[in-house]
Amino acid sequence: MTQAKIVEVGPRDGLQNEAGVTLEQRIQLVDALSETGLKEIEAGSFVSPRWVPQMADADRLFARIQRKAGVRYSALTPNLKGLESALAAGVDGVAVFGAASESFSQRNINCSVAESLERFQPVMAAARDADVPVRGYVSCVLGCPYEGEIPVARVAEVAQTLYQMGCYEISLGDTIGVGTPAKARAMVMAVAERVPISALALHFHDTYGQALANLLACLELGVTTFDSAVAGLGGCPYAAGASGNLATEDLVYMLEGMGVETGVNLDALVRAGEQICHGLNKSPTSRVAQAWLAKRKETQG
Amino acid sequence: MTQAKIVEVGPRDGLQNEAGVTLEQRIQLVDALSETGLKEIEAGSFVSPRWVPQMADADRLFARIQRKAGVRYSALTPNLKGLESALAAGVDGVAVFGAASESFSQRNINCSVAESLERFQPVMAAARDADVPVRGYVSCVLGCPYEGEIPVARVAEVAQTLYQMGCYEISLGDTIGVGTPAKARAMVMAVAERVPISALALHFHDTYGQALANLLACLELGVTTFDSAVAGLGGCPYAAGASGNLATEDLVYMLEGMGVETGVNLDALVRAGEQICHGLNKSPTSRVAQAWLAKRKETQG
Repeated sequence: MTQAKIVEVGPRDGLQNEAGVTLEQRIQLVDALSETGLKEIEAGSFVSPRWVPQMADADRLFARIQRKAGVRYSALTPNLKGLESALAAGVDGVAVFGAASESFSQRNINCSVAESLERFQPVMAAARDADVPVRGYVSCVLGCPYEGEIPVARVAEVAQTLYQMGCYEISLGDTIGVGTPAKARAMVMAVAERVPISALALHFHDTYGQALANLLACLELGVTTFDSAVAGLGGCPYAAGASGNLATEDLVYMLEGMGVETGVNLDALVRAGEQICHGLNKSPTSRVAQAWLAKRKETQG
Repeated sequence: MTQAKIVEVGPRDGLQNEAGVTLEQRIQLVDALSETGLKEIEAGSFVSPRWVPQMADADRLFARIQRKAGVRYSALTPNLKGLESALAAGVDGVAVFGAASESFSQRNINCSVAESLERFQPVMAAARDADVPVRGYVSCVLGCPYEGEIPVARVAEVAQTLYQMGCYEISLGDTIGVGTPAKARAMVMAVAERVPISALALHFHDTYGQALANLLACLELGVTTFDSAVAGLGGCPYAAGASGNLATEDLVYMLEGMGVETGVNLDALVRAGEQICHGLNKSPTSRVAQAWLAKRKETQG
């Protein structure tokens, strides 16, 4: 592999877990990320503000961000109403999400996995009519907070269904960050029997510090698309205070160190993370950002 | 691989970077670690307290820890005076350290790498006479704060010299945590041409969040011995505020998740780290510890 594609999910998967984030801060973050060289930014979620108040006013966000040529700005659209709003806002791509765990699906969206996939049919159709690409997420691919281990065959099945429904890319989410490298590899191998590996993305959370190692274990299988969040934004709703998404800085550092081009300017990325973290009054959980900021502090005296 | 050996370096490499740590706290930490199932604990350093005040009174530490059967308690001994004190204190093993970087050696111990290795000859001889095993550290194996990249041939040469001098194990230290997986693997492959891989240990710091991924990249080469520090104790003296050693909790989580036995009780380990971090008024940088403590907090209320 000589090139990787990074899907920056900080403004959506990261900030949806950050209470008190403002629309202004979200717009600033997307704009800062646009200047880093990232080519794909999941900028928000068209979901009821009653469910996720942090993601409210996605239409206003899309109207106000400075879109940079060559960058794809996408959003999560859990239903037809969300999709219609997203299309009206001029998104470049949308995403739907299924779970690999029945319990997770029932407890989070009050329906079975099959029912949730069924509900995406009209979303897929409308997106197709609008010529907007749809990404599919599968959650709990390496474990569920309610069920524990999830059979890889189940993950493969849900991934295949989403792919057959028309998703151009399937993002495999270790939602609670419990996976370890051998399991991650086995899961990806199982999914790759049903979905072309070029259509797979890894979306690993760093709750137990395993995200980068898990991703590395899957690199040699041929996956080239990775989701991450600047500064390691986000958290784990099942362990408040634990870390969130894999930090984009740490991912870029590893890939570039291995000779894999990401197109991302690490310095600009650290600054983007620093800005949003300052606004949220927290420290980046990205180790690269921590080291970068510590060194800068020393240099400046 | 079905079993791994973990060398816990928290009481030494971790605490030597923690200003204000007391002898009492150091003893408590070693005793707590003894109850976790760890089989090897680097408990201190017999070095002048003018150099490293945090490591003062190693003789008193060794006199007061509760030694558990089956656990090896070792110490760093940079010179003959240190070795004699260590032997008098009844250590089970000692360690010496060389650098793979000339600049690092000159700036840290005021002599060339060759001179430093020469100075270890009497230490090696006296340890041999006392039938105490000597471990050799090589620092800066994946980069130097002054020179940048270090040729792998240079690392291999220093490792081989220490091995030929009689060190039973060579611990390869990414002192400033700058390495990435492909480089780590290339370095270990180069060293393994000169030193049996069964005599190699990996000692990776997590400054840039790469430690676990780097270690994973070397696992398949056959390395089975790993250094780490409970709670991710320590820091980077070249970037104050950055993270320190690879956290033992995160390493154990990964290895056990891959079916590799460590013999370590993760719950006892998290508690040992929690205790010392409480004493130092800091939070563990171990992601596993953070998640563990966050979950406990939720469960309790």
